[in-house]
Amino acid sequence: MIYNFNAGPAMQPKAVMLETQAELLDWHGCGKSVMEISHHSDEFSTIAQDAEQRLRLLLDIPSDYAVLFLAGGASIQFSMIPLNLCANHDDQADYLHTGAWSGKAITEAKRYIRVNTAMSAKNSEFSTLPDHTRWQLTDNARYLYYTTNETVQGIQFNSIPQSTVPLVADMTSSILSEHLDIKRYGVIFAGVQKNIAPAGMTIAIISPDCLDCAMAITPHWFHYQSQYQAHSMLNTPPTFNWYMAGLMFKWVEDEGGIAVMEQRCIRKSTSIYEVIDNSNGFYINRIDPTYRSKLNVVFHLKTTKLQDTFIQEATNADLHGLKGHKLMGGIRASMYNAMPEEGAQQLCNFMRDFAQRYG
Amino acid sequence: MIYNFNAGPAMQPKAVMLETQAELLDWHGCGKSVMEISHHSDEFSTIAQDAEQRLRLLLDIPSDYAVLFLAGGASIQFSMIPLNLCANHDDQADYLHTGAWSGKAITEAKRYIRVNTAMSAKNSEFSTLPDHTRWQLTDNARYLYYTTNETVQGIQFNSIPQSTVPLVADMTSSILSEHLDIKRYGVIFAGVQKNIAPAGMTIAIISPDCLDCAMAITPHWFHYQSQYQAHSMLNTPPTFNWYMAGLMFKWVEDEGGIAVMEQRCIRKSTSIYEVIDNSNGFYINRIDPTYRSKLNVVFHLKTTKLQDTFIQEATNADLHGLKGHKLMGGIRASMYNAMPEEGAQQLCNFMRDFAQRYG
Repeated sequence: MIYNFNAGPAMQPKAVMLETQAELLDWHGCGKSVMEISHHSDEFSTIAQDAEQRLRLLLDIPSDYAVLFLAGGASIQFSMIPLNLCANHDDQADYLHTGAWSGKAITEAKRYIRVNTAMSAKNSEFSTLPDHTRWQLTDNARYLYYTTNETVQGIQFNSIPQSTVPLVADMTSSILSEHLDIKRYGVIFAGVQKNIAPAGMTIAIISPDCLDCAMAITPHWFHYQSQYQAHSMLNTPPTFNWYMAGLMFKWVEDEGGIAVMEQRCIRKSTSIYEVIDNSNGFYINRIDPTYRSKLNVVFHLKTTKLQDTFIQEATNADLHGLKGHKLMGGIRASMYNAMPEEGAQQLCNFMRDFAQRYG
Repeated sequence: MIYNFNAGPAMQPKAVMLETQAELLDWHGCGKSVMEISHHSDEFSTIAQDAEQRLRLLLDIPSDYAVLFLAGGASIQFSMIPLNLCANHDDQADYLHTGAWSGKAITEAKRYIRVNTAMSAKNSEFSTLPDHTRWQLTDNARYLYYTTNETVQGIQFNSIPQSTVPLVADMTSSILSEHLDIKRYGVIFAGVQKNIAPAGMTIAIISPDCLDCAMAITPHWFHYQSQYQAHSMLNTPPTFNWYMAGLMFKWVEDEGGIAVMEQRCIRKSTSIYEVIDNSNGFYINRIDPTYRSKLNVVFHLKTTKLQDTFIQEATNADLHGLKGHKLMGGIRASMYNAMPEEGAQQLCNFMRDFAQRYG
């Protein structure tokens, strides 16, 4: 058994992979692969509606919220959020700058609207999140944008930001890992390649207020209201990704739902942070413990020249994908829902053993 | 054996499906699925470069042309073509209106630039293509846009349009089915879900002249030059689709290359048109024979009330996906490279038998 700590594309549950493999050439006896059938067919309609329904139940999504299955990765939404939520280029939105991904979202939004960076964690090199009392929100913002979890730095919000305007959240790395109060959001979007399905699709959950206020230049195929009216089939959607998303949602249900995922997620990350904190400085995590990511444990070794050895020996021990993001160096253990608790345990054992041998 | 005549998503070669299935959980002994590995990994770099190289060889793509693997379907390029090829909203482009897909491209382009419909086949209800001497091209057009094959109407160009400005072609349904003189094109794009891979990716082949002239509002993740510089990995690309595209390119090579595909394509479509033409009017194809599509044979039955029976009996005979597009009704037999010649033959036999029984 290989434990794959890649940040995304990431590990899939074994059960989902085996089911996909078993029915790859013949979906439910129809004689064709899921990827060979028309998106307008009765078979695919069943698959699509089933996936949406399971997600709605898992996350308790209000019935008046749209659930869209859009082509491409979450980064595309960095353009589509300002385009869909603002009427014109003079509109303003508030952004919280907490790491690499919110930074990219800000850069892209500035090309379309006026952006107010209401909070930046840059001064601390993204190691802590300034308290909301220090945020400089604007009265006339069209929305408040934040990234729930920053995978590069390994820092995560531990509560939902207060907002009087529609709250927009990039949940690419945290979706399905914790309970969500959907009604507090205007738009939630998540690329699927970390916690849901193969790369190439983004799920968007959109309140009725945010569906139909797009700028005239919004590309038709990313216009939220148009895709909503077309059931995300304004053009051919990424059908295979949509199908695998449905299998993942079913797997989460079968495992016990979001509450179980949330507890596992806490246990997995906590166990590794404990090894770090008890290593007498052999391993170092620089994130304020209040905001440590439960999905991406980012750390480095005090003796940085040992890091390549760490990664090599870990790989030899079937612990793959631990190399940190190029911006940060060091080590990163990404653990989404598909990472079994045994994987985190094996990594803890390896880390303790490695520290003992080289410490 | 089921023969799947769906227009797209469409049939895949059996050999490609079996290889995908066999290595779905463990790509080349790396212990992980292709869909679970990082797009920045050595493994995926190999897959990505290999696919691009095979496509370059198959289509004899000049080395100074960019080959991009972009997220989403071809329709997204209806927006991205004017955005990437025009400097501002006052720029003009010439479009050839030959059916449903070029019609959609025109509608979308009008949102960004001035569009001159240089030729429209609408007067003939898209049953023939006005000769190029009757086209009303403009001198200052940024590009000339056309759709090589219209899948809804079943009409196809039989030569490359003459153009003094960059020629842009939507080849979603015809790519890999015929020899191409790439140097005559500014941009070729093709959604992969018909002739290449699962839905959710578009391949773009772009001349150096057309790479870097985008409008300021072009979304960063669809900016051709930026994606070219990032080797199509500005963000996480649809890795699994890219991988399967590579398997398809290898399969085309193994079968003998584009020339073999082209001959098969001609034989398959010709055989069905012959059955239609020899049916004493039982089957009717309304397209000018000069421009009949080699990919999508669109026809109807003289006795329209027999059409449901035709589709039902065909399905019972393992000939699936023959229902015509909702705009046209009737019957449509789509036959991309993965459709074996035996499939076309079985359909011919079925059609002759059906005509005999009901004619």
